[in-house]
Amino acid sequence: MATIRDVAKLAGLSVATVSRAINGSGYVSEDSRKKIDNAVKILDFRPNEVARSLYQKKSKLVGLLLPDISNPFFPLLAKGVEDFLQAKGYQVILGNVQENPERANDYIHAFSQNNVAGVLSAVDNDYAFYNSVHPLVFLDRVGKDSEYSIHADDVAGGALAATTVLKRKTKEIIVISGPKEIDRSQERLQGVLSVLNQQKSNYYIINSVSFLLEDAISTAQAVFEEFSQVDTVIAPSDIHAIALIQEAYRRNIKVPDELQVIGYDDIPISNLVVPPLTTIHQPAYEMGYKGAEMLYQLMNGQKVMQKKLILPTRLVTRDTLRKKEVQ
Amino acid sequence: MATIRDVAKLAGLSVATVSRAINGSGYVSEDSRKKIDNAVKILDFRPNEVARSLYQKKSKLVGLLLPDISNPFFPLLAKGVEDFLQAKGYQVILGNVQENPERANDYIHAFSQNNVAGVLSAVDNDYAFYNSVHPLVFLDRVGKDSEYSIHADDVAGGALAATTVLKRKTKEIIVISGPKEIDRSQERLQGVLSVLNQQKSNYYIINSVSFLLEDAISTAQAVFEEFSQVDTVIAPSDIHAIALIQEAYRRNIKVPDELQVIGYDDIPISNLVVPPLTTIHQPAYEMGYKGAEMLYQLMNGQKVMQKKLILPTRLVTRDTLRKKEVQ
Repeated sequence: MATIRDVAKLAGLSVATVSRAINGSGYVSEDSRKKIDNAVKILDFRPNEVARSLYQKKSKLVGLLLPDISNPFFPLLAKGVEDFLQAKGYQVILGNVQENPERANDYIHAFSQNNVAGVLSAVDNDYAFYNSVHPLVFLDRVGKDSEYSIHADDVAGGALAATTVLKRKTKEIIVISGPKEIDRSQERLQGVLSVLNQQKSNYYIINSVSFLLEDAISTAQAVFEEFSQVDTVIAPSDIHAIALIQEAYRRNIKVPDELQVIGYDDIPISNLVVPPLTTIHQPAYEMGYKGAEMLYQLMNGQKVMQKKLILPTRLVTRDTLRKKEVQ
Repeated sequence: MATIRDVAKLAGLSVATVSRAINGSGYVSEDSRKKIDNAVKILDFRPNEVARSLYQKKSKLVGLLLPDISNPFFPLLAKGVEDFLQAKGYQVILGNVQENPERANDYIHAFSQNNVAGVLSAVDNDYAFYNSVHPLVFLDRVGKDSEYSIHADDVAGGALAATTVLKRKTKEIIVISGPKEIDRSQERLQGVLSVLNQQKSNYYIINSVSFLLEDAISTAQAVFEEFSQVDTVIAPSDIHAIALIQEAYRRNIKVPDELQVIGYDDIPISNLVVPPLTTIHQPAYEMGYKGAEMLYQLMNGQKVMQKKLILPTRLVTRDTLRKKEVQ
């Protein structure tokens, strides 16, 4: 493949002149420009980002690794990342692992080999070898060894969900537990159970294996099949809660009169289902935006004031819980 | 930056030996391997995809350009693309333009400069300069000049929506028209109107400016504000239909008794709303999968039997239309 030296030689000009012409970084006579254009064509010379990144070891490309773009939480997170970084002149390329952590390493490899300027990842690092990418900021799902990270305060969020439910009259409370291997869902569960145990409430736990829609649907069916008396459900995600409302509709069970549900996430669709979902709001967009800001600081040698950021959650009251009876 | 020659020189070995060691492509003695490892560390040599792609002019990376990943239609399309190409050993990197076509060119540039092996795009090419990427296959949104493309038969899909509605008793039919600049929505509208006009039905058209959720919500509000007698709506997307069902709920209007709605797309959530949405199914996953197959054939010099593929749509009957009254 032709180099800038080959072009200079064929054009009978200095490398510096050819460089100025190609990068548009200084005066080049019309005559020289014609010679250079000619040589570039003959040699099929392509001055590109790849060659430049080899030299500069930096690009304006950032890799973003997401667990599953069909879960509406992650497009919202991505939007925050994209909005921050695009305003700073970066391009964000996405890798979607479809909740299959084995695919994460392929993307890390692809990012690394294309000299991305940095990586943001919402895929738990227990499964992946992140050594080759730097700097690196974890979003939402955060492994134990991560140095830079941002996520919501899920212990408090889970506790808030339980406290909110206990202000209503309940008969049989079912807690759906999210996947065991995801720290976020385990902290949510921990928050929920701490309140229920403290209040000496009775409850049953049912496990869900992932945040994928198909798993949420089968969990919703299992709830009704295993617990015929269920009247209150604390869900680990809005997707789980929405699947449950749908299953109640199919069984002709009225929400919230006969079944009350609280979700988690506050994804956009949670306000569009019928009845609109009462849920715990996670600041997904803000998480993406602030995570991108942290990465930007790292990419540009700026000081990061707080390496581990934890964002607050809040209750969004809509129509899937009954009226308060306690206090 | 260190080259493979520098490594060979420092290790006192031939370039061929170093190349074999690094690419794992042949026998290298334990002793030589130690010398090479040592030289690699001292020189901080990084044999990477970038260098390799400069040489081979090919990578195992495919760029996928999407209008908006927060619209559930596109994650489904992406899944089809990823499933096909990952099985063939390719990595798919996504560019999300957030319905802002100006961002498309930045991604095309990024894809091109990183020597992707091919590009799939669902962003209409009237706005973007695709000259620098090759091969290129358009998915769903297809510009006039595109050579290779795949999309659904939206004229037939729109006609099917109208025919389905006309089998029910209707009072006032509102047709929501999708964005004027998107060929898909214009063909849907054309299909709807051809049937309504042929049947001499009365109808009103209301325009929606995009497929973004916020625009679907404001269009839903406008429908009720401008047409107090509305009892039947033909929507250009499931997002529009779901926003309409929600707005009906807020206004205490019963679906389908007082308002019947038909959607378009059959995104996963359309089966989870209450009542579940009657809609026209587009084969989004299949579209992604077959589009990826077409790109794969182009990337590997195979013959593409059909340059422009058009996939059929079908009706999915759920609960948002009233019982048939005609025939």
